[in-house]
Amino acid sequence: MGRLRTNSGPAEDLLIELDRDAGVPLHRQIEASIRAGIRAGRLRSGASLPPTRTLAAGLGVSRGVVVEAYQQLVAEGYLVSRSGGYTQVAAPMPPAATAADGAGSAASMAQPAARSVGFRVDFGYGRTDVSQFPRSAWLRSVRTVLTTTPNDRFAYLDGRGVPELHEALCDYLNRVRGTSSVPDNMVICNGYGQGISLLIQVLVQHGARRIALEDPSSNDDARVLAGAAGLEVVGIPVGPDGVQVDALHRADADAIVLTPSHQWPTGGVLSAAARAEVIRWAKRRGAIVVEDDYDAEYRYDRSPVGAMQGLAPDHVVYCGTASKTLAPGLRLGWLVVPPHLVADVAEAKVLADRGSPVIDQLTFADFLARGEFDRHLRRMRPVYRRRRDALLDALRTHLPDLEPGGVAAGQHVVAWLPPDLDEAAVVAAAARHGLGIHGVGPYRIAGTGPGGLIFGYAILGESAIAEGVALLATAIREVRGP
Amino acid sequence: MGRLRTNSGPAEDLLIELDRDAGVPLHRQIEASIRAGIRAGRLRSGASLPPTRTLAAGLGVSRGVVVEAYQQLVAEGYLVSRSGGYTQVAAPMPPAATAADGAGSAASMAQPAARSVGFRVDFGYGRTDVSQFPRSAWLRSVRTVLTTTPNDRFAYLDGRGVPELHEALCDYLNRVRGTSSVPDNMVICNGYGQGISLLIQVLVQHGARRIALEDPSSNDDARVLAGAAGLEVVGIPVGPDGVQVDALHRADADAIVLTPSHQWPTGGVLSAAARAEVIRWAKRRGAIVVEDDYDAEYRYDRSPVGAMQGLAPDHVVYCGTASKTLAPGLRLGWLVVPPHLVADVAEAKVLADRGSPVIDQLTFADFLARGEFDRHLRRMRPVYRRRRDALLDALRTHLPDLEPGGVAAGQHVVAWLPPDLDEAAVVAAAARHGLGIHGVGPYRIAGTGPGGLIFGYAILGESAIAEGVALLATAIREVRGP
Repeated sequence: MGRLRTNSGPAEDLLIELDRDAGVPLHRQIEASIRAGIRAGRLRSGASLPPTRTLAAGLGVSRGVVVEAYQQLVAEGYLVSRSGGYTQVAAPMPPAATAADGAGSAASMAQPAARSVGFRVDFGYGRTDVSQFPRSAWLRSVRTVLTTTPNDRFAYLDGRGVPELHEALCDYLNRVRGTSSVPDNMVICNGYGQGISLLIQVLVQHGARRIALEDPSSNDDARVLAGAAGLEVVGIPVGPDGVQVDALHRADADAIVLTPSHQWPTGGVLSAAARAEVIRWAKRRGAIVVEDDYDAEYRYDRSPVGAMQGLAPDHVVYCGTASKTLAPGLRLGWLVVPPHLVADVAEAKVLADRGSPVIDQLTFADFLARGEFDRHLRRMRPVYRRRRDALLDALRTHLPDLEPGGVAAGQHVVAWLPPDLDEAAVVAAAARHGLGIHGVGPYRIAGTGPGGLIFGYAILGESAIAEGVALLATAIREVRGP
Repeated sequence: MGRLRTNSGPAEDLLIELDRDAGVPLHRQIEASIRAGIRAGRLRSGASLPPTRTLAAGLGVSRGVVVEAYQQLVAEGYLVSRSGGYTQVAAPMPPAATAADGAGSAASMAQPAARSVGFRVDFGYGRTDVSQFPRSAWLRSVRTVLTTTPNDRFAYLDGRGVPELHEALCDYLNRVRGTSSVPDNMVICNGYGQGISLLIQVLVQHGARRIALEDPSSNDDARVLAGAAGLEVVGIPVGPDGVQVDALHRADADAIVLTPSHQWPTGGVLSAAARAEVIRWAKRRGAIVVEDDYDAEYRYDRSPVGAMQGLAPDHVVYCGTASKTLAPGLRLGWLVVPPHLVADVAEAKVLADRGSPVIDQLTFADFLARGEFDRHLRRMRPVYRRRRDALLDALRTHLPDLEPGGVAAGQHVVAWLPPDLDEAAVVAAAARHGLGIHGVGPYRIAGTGPGGLIFGYAILGESAIAEGVALLATAIREVRGP
């Protein structure tokens, strides 16, 4: 236990309690205390944090622990690193001023299934290893639900879902994803696919005319739905750190769909500065940010970046899904909705299907509350990590001139092609050699950029991954010719 | 076993095989043979059937058995009774000729939940006795699913649902509801609420501008969705035998939503002649009939009337639901869709939510295949029948001048008020006495008609029903004054 005393005086003292028996890493405990302090207003914007060495000594931890906590909060946009080596609480995001312009290009996030048959190896993305679905634990939760749930839960319910799941998900998301959720702001839906459909309906009801999507991004959910709803779609180019915010300022959009923790498909993480700028943009315009947090549970090399929603719960809709962690067939998703939109989203859900099925909702609530979800993720992370490592190893060995981009998280990796290789030609040659793989090109809206390949590795064993990369190397040799 | 030889010659012979050990009543077996013969073209339109006495003798059954079979098929529109006492195969519904006119009034069917709290007794409709949900049998099916289902069923599937459920439902619907379903024409959806939403989207895509709804009918599904989709809604007045087809001819509509087996809320059964006429209308205009078969499983005094879909599978979309038989919270519904619309409905389902949750679908398929659904219905029918009888007894005793209308089937009864009683005044007085009940008025579109009260009795015990009617009698005495 220690106190974080900022240089702005005692009003900004922050109690940091470390529980060494909690099973929660110390840096996560420090992060959580500082994050909560900023949110509650106990740590004001501009307050300087103590040097890492000082805080570490005060808490009796190694300096690296504090460095890790600060870095994480910088990545999430709560803190800023100043030149001179000190760290401040970030500004509370007042209106910014920038110009507008219509031209753009880009798309949204992706959780589609791209399955093909007849390939020897298929790097199709958007797939989860459903052979690992925790059947016994799920059945235990179904049994609990069917033996203990009061009758009235099986009748018609309101559009938001069952209260048990609101509670359990709030606890989980606030703890693991750094959201600022309350049960009353949650709407349970049938996966992200329905969530984004409901949100687009509500945006249109509220007068939205133009929606910004990341370019590249998925091409079979937000893009199709927005078009069908009569919204104009504008793409915002994606760089190595996610969406380029200067283009957003010119886009004259009423909403943006983002994958800030792991851009789909390029893999970038939206920088802290860009997060803050996007939220400034949303506040200035009264716009809505839809945060598609599709695979944040799988981050292998560092702590996951917290959700943007926690920075601005009145402007960000958080979208989560069980499709990447448990199984797409569950069709379980959840939205954390700004208070002023909750009733409209719930009404859209009632009109769409009168609410999601209750047995699955109650089962997932029990599964979360028992800690089975955390247990399942702990079991799966090393599985996917080994597959990711096998992929990166094979690429280094067989195709060293392909450049893996973004952070290696989630369940796919993008590797960029050198300029001499045409993406479509490589994809076609790969198919001829029995390898299924998607290029980045089809996911671009209007933007151009280097050729790239999307490697979905979630359902492939390590030897299949190595075989797939070897097939790709053969295909690429063929494309290059003699 | 015997042969049904019509008077049109040997080409129209029909083999009727009776299996006395099948556990299927003989009249149902005869019905099924004749229905199949008409569908397959083996019994041509206009063919006269043998007199009941003759066929009974040929089959070695009592005449009443054949009479029952003929009556059922007349009710379903397959046969017509001619003056002179003989029975013919109905005409194959060629185009009819009638005029058009725009004015109309009316609505759609109803499965909404109207729950209120704070009433001593609540006759709110649309409720199922979820305390009777077959929890143990359902859990057995979940266990089977989770222990035996191949992994790939838990991945993304197409929009139509799981093949196991298509098969099981087809068997059930063709056997029990007289539909003409094949697995490839089925789309699983989240209850009728989503089904009608998808259908309205597809109708609009196909150029529909005007939709006819029964007047009165439910006011929170098709009516709201059609309005939101930009369709003009035209009400078709409902008489004692369901919708008045002459008004439909004047309505210039592209589709109609019907509750032919048990009109909601008035309880009428659409006559065989009217069914045939509606189908003629649909064929002539290329219009679609949406058959909302919401509560056909509960018919107490005679065989259920077969589904209209069986008469014209290319023009009728059949909609079924588990909300009235198992639990609304399951959000399980199914559509049998004309072949030319299946792909579009499935695509709308993919865009809406990428398909319904698979565990519930697989569980219901297993539940059906085990015969648990039939078993559950056999158990529930006498329960609801006793409640229906208790209601009718209490009305006879306490309120003999209210006139129960329609057939006593399903889970609600309408009783018409005598002319001196104002419906709204009675509903308000009932509420003051602690009785929740809905009038028919709010469900009318543009039509007028006598005042009526909708008694939902599904979740009330017999003593609560008697108490509720006594409260209503008190309220009505108060309205009438001294």
